Amino acid sequence: MRESNVLSGTLTALAEEKKYNSIKDILRTMNPADIAELFGAVPEQTLPILFRLLSQDQAAETFSEMDSDQQQTLIEVFSDRELREVVNELCADDAADLVDDMPANVVKRILRQADPEMRQMINELLKYPEDTAGSIMTPEFVRLNPDMTVDEAVRSIRSTGLEKETINDCYITDGTSRLTGTVSIRTLIVSGGGERIRDIMEENVIFVDAKEDQEEVARVFDKYNLMVLPVVDAERHLVGIITVDDVLDVLKKETTEDMEIMAAMMPSDRPYIKTSVLELWKNRIPWLLALMISATVTGTIISRYEDALAACVTLTAYIPMLMDTGGNSGSQSSTSVIRALSLHELDFSDGLKVIWKEARVAVLCGVTLAAVNFGKLMLFDRVGMQVAAAVCCTMVVTVLVSKMVGGILPLAAKKLRFDPAVMASPLITTVVDAMSLMIYFQFAQAFLGL
Amino acid sequence: MRESNVLSGTLTALAEEKKYNSIKDILRTMNPADIAELFGAVPEQTLPILFRLLSQDQAAETFSEMDSDQQQTLIEVFSDRELREVVNELCADDAADLVDDMPANVVKRILRQADPEMRQMINELLKYPEDTAGSIMTPEFVRLNPDMTVDEAVRSIRSTGLEKETINDCYITDGTSRLTGTVSIRTLIVSGGGERIRDIMEENVIFVDAKEDQEEVARVFDKYNLMVLPVVDAERHLVGIITVDDVLDVLKKETTEDMEIMAAMMPSDRPYIKTSVLELWKNRIPWLLALMISATVTGTIISRYEDALAACVTLTAYIPMLMDTGGNSGSQSSTSVIRALSLHELDFSDGLKVIWKEARVAVLCGVTLAAVNFGKLMLFDRVGMQVAAAVCCTMVVTVLVSKMVGGILPLAAKKLRFDPAVMASPLITTVVDAMSLMIYFQFAQAFLGL
Repeated sequence: MRESNVLSGTLTALAEEKKYNSIKDILRTMNPADIAELFGAVPEQTLPILFRLLSQDQAAETFSEMDSDQQQTLIEVFSDRELREVVNELCADDAADLVDDMPANVVKRILRQADPEMRQMINELLKYPEDTAGSIMTPEFVRLNPDMTVDEAVRSIRSTGLEKETINDCYITDGTSRLTGTVSIRTLIVSGGGERIRDIMEENVIFVDAKEDQEEVARVFDKYNLMVLPVVDAERHLVGIITVDDVLDVLKKETTEDMEIMAAMMPSDRPYIKTSVLELWKNRIPWLLALMISATVTGTIISRYEDALAACVTLTAYIPMLMDTGGNSGSQSSTSVIRALSLHELDFSDGLKVIWKEARVAVLCGVTLAAVNFGKLMLFDRVGMQVAAAVCCTMVVTVLVSKMVGGILPLAAKKLRFDPAVMASPLITTVVDAMSLMIYFQFAQAFLGL
Repeated sequence: MRESNVLSGTLTALAEEKKYNSIKDILRTMNPADIAELFGAVPEQTLPILFRLLSQDQAAETFSEMDSDQQQTLIEVFSDRELREVVNELCADDAADLVDDMPANVVKRILRQADPEMRQMINELLKYPEDTAGSIMTPEFVRLNPDMTVDEAVRSIRSTGLEKETINDCYITDGTSRLTGTVSIRTLIVSGGGERIRDIMEENVIFVDAKEDQEEVARVFDKYNLMVLPVVDAERHLVGIITVDDVLDVLKKETTEDMEIMAAMMPSDRPYIKTSVLELWKNRIPWLLALMISATVTGTIISRYEDALAACVTLTAYIPMLMDTGGNSGSQSSTSVIRALSLHELDFSDGLKVIWKEARVAVLCGVTLAAVNFGKLMLFDRVGMQVAAAVCCTMVVTVLVSKMVGGILPLAAKKLRFDPAVMASPLITTVVDAMSLMIYFQFAQAFLGL
């Protein structure tokens, strides 16, 4: 971050001095992703000057790596010709993303400048709902005919390959453009020139439906170690391909979303630093309110036992520690189960195994914690035997209950088709708090006769 | 999961009836990753029978997709010849992983059966510490000479390409095997046969050092949308390549690790369902103990204000709600910051921006929560004005303090080179609990004159 700040300062200064050739020299050695990062730190009015100094090779790729705010800034100063050059050089999936991100008037200009072919591809891609396979695919793939020879196939790739997202895997379709096979460039290279594609193609093709969720797409990539995955429509017509670099983005986004949900926030699409204060408030307040209101239950429980507490105020001192330990124990279990569910290592049918495992871990943890606590209560706090017994018994039972609840709730959520991530720390804590108080007061009454 | 259970039942039954041809027919249509998943649900004694029915093409790939427990089961029943066939067909990085996972006596057998070339590659790879670029790379890449013509390069790829992990990118090294350029198979295909590699190669190559952390490797892949990344040693000699499928594994592992740390557990390498009860206890108990002992502070605070509480027991009823809301507010902020740090959207120099943003969000959230709470206190709980004022003022200040602490601690951890993920929910909750109690008692004393 610091490095790009220094360099962006240099470029801005050079732009003010109109030393355009030096700027070109610097930019020429750089990679589009690095240039885009650099441009992120440049004043808005300097951005168009710098962008126009990029070579034509770099311009479109750099543009597609930029933030949508900066893309909009550029489009607004672009002449029609400049816009046309950039838009038609973009990969179709990047162009569709761009159209998705821009306000209506900018979209109109973009579509007007797009070639008919590009316009059609953009419109095709925009038909698919967000977060589906269709929304992250590109229609720019190499399509081969099963009757071609290897030599014909290579000639065909040579003539069109430069415009395709990748040529590493080529797809074979029948007369109705149904997907029938795939052949890797490696197979083409090692095969004899006269062999027919139908004889060397792999017919057992892994593919996804365009309406499939992108999280499932990521799972397929991971399971089969893929670089590219073909996408078909309901009739198995080949409509596009997904490349693994888009899957990395999906994984990153889904992980962020999971973590946000697990911390009781509404998931957000924008990076933290670019999210406005009001938006952050909107994402955070619903859960805070819901959890605060749920916590009323704990208040009610305490009120019901007010007399007991008044008789032995010392008991109050251990409430936070017991509640926290219960919450932490439960969060550990729920996080383990949520993560295992999202990696498909577990499903609902493993419920009994999970409960049995958590129960045993809970007993081990509960007894350890109670033992340490008992020592502390007797040696440092010097409380009576009855209070110590109440606290330690509560500890064992609370940890047991918390870990069971933490293990079961995500599985139940999965079964009920909720997102298991909702059952993370904050919700578990609220549920466990109420239970640990009840357990505590029961033991206190039993041991202290309150 | 269910599906593979059904099919594994069928295969086990067929194996008992010795219907080997039918099994072969079923397996032939399947993908190695699916076969490995299926074999995971098969009884241990049936596994070798089924494995031996795989075609030679499928055997090594299926083997590399299997769990290490099952790999060990197979190796133990393999004849030397069978072991030799599987080991030498593995990709070098999978072979090194295998050697890494097996007990010493099995490793000896594997290395004895490996070809000299494979043995050397395995030994090379094992030199690199876990979690470095070197540990996830493979030395099986296509190396070209800058003086070759395109035709010569293609001939060279044709003769050796089948053994390489990928031929989609080829690497050019100088006389001392230093990395000097890269050329994609696409460029080779569209270039004229007589052109020299040195004239068409890309010299601005992105690479990593073999000692680089694998998390940084994943970041480089993501930033530059790579499929393959070359790995060099300290003298810039090309030693291997990393393919993006291994990066997906890294991302998955790192995410799991982050989530485990954020839920106060020691990170674990094994999937939840395969982790023993004792191991889970070992991973969970240190943090539970540490947090329980830290929670002693809250007990001490309550004890100090015992008289105040005895005078107005109603105050106790709101302790859990205030502590929970503080904890939830703080966790939201710390999770946002931890995630932004791990995506490199933030660094320590953004500290002031984070604090200012969190402060404004906190005031909005705190006031909203206090207002709702005030309504509830007056209308439902019918507490006195003084208690309501104490609770609501505590709410505003607690949320403010919690969100500041939640925002700052991960940044501070990063600066001090700790893992920011440690500063997640459980630790924040413990810190915030103590603070919210102090704030509560201060307001209670002020408003109620206790």
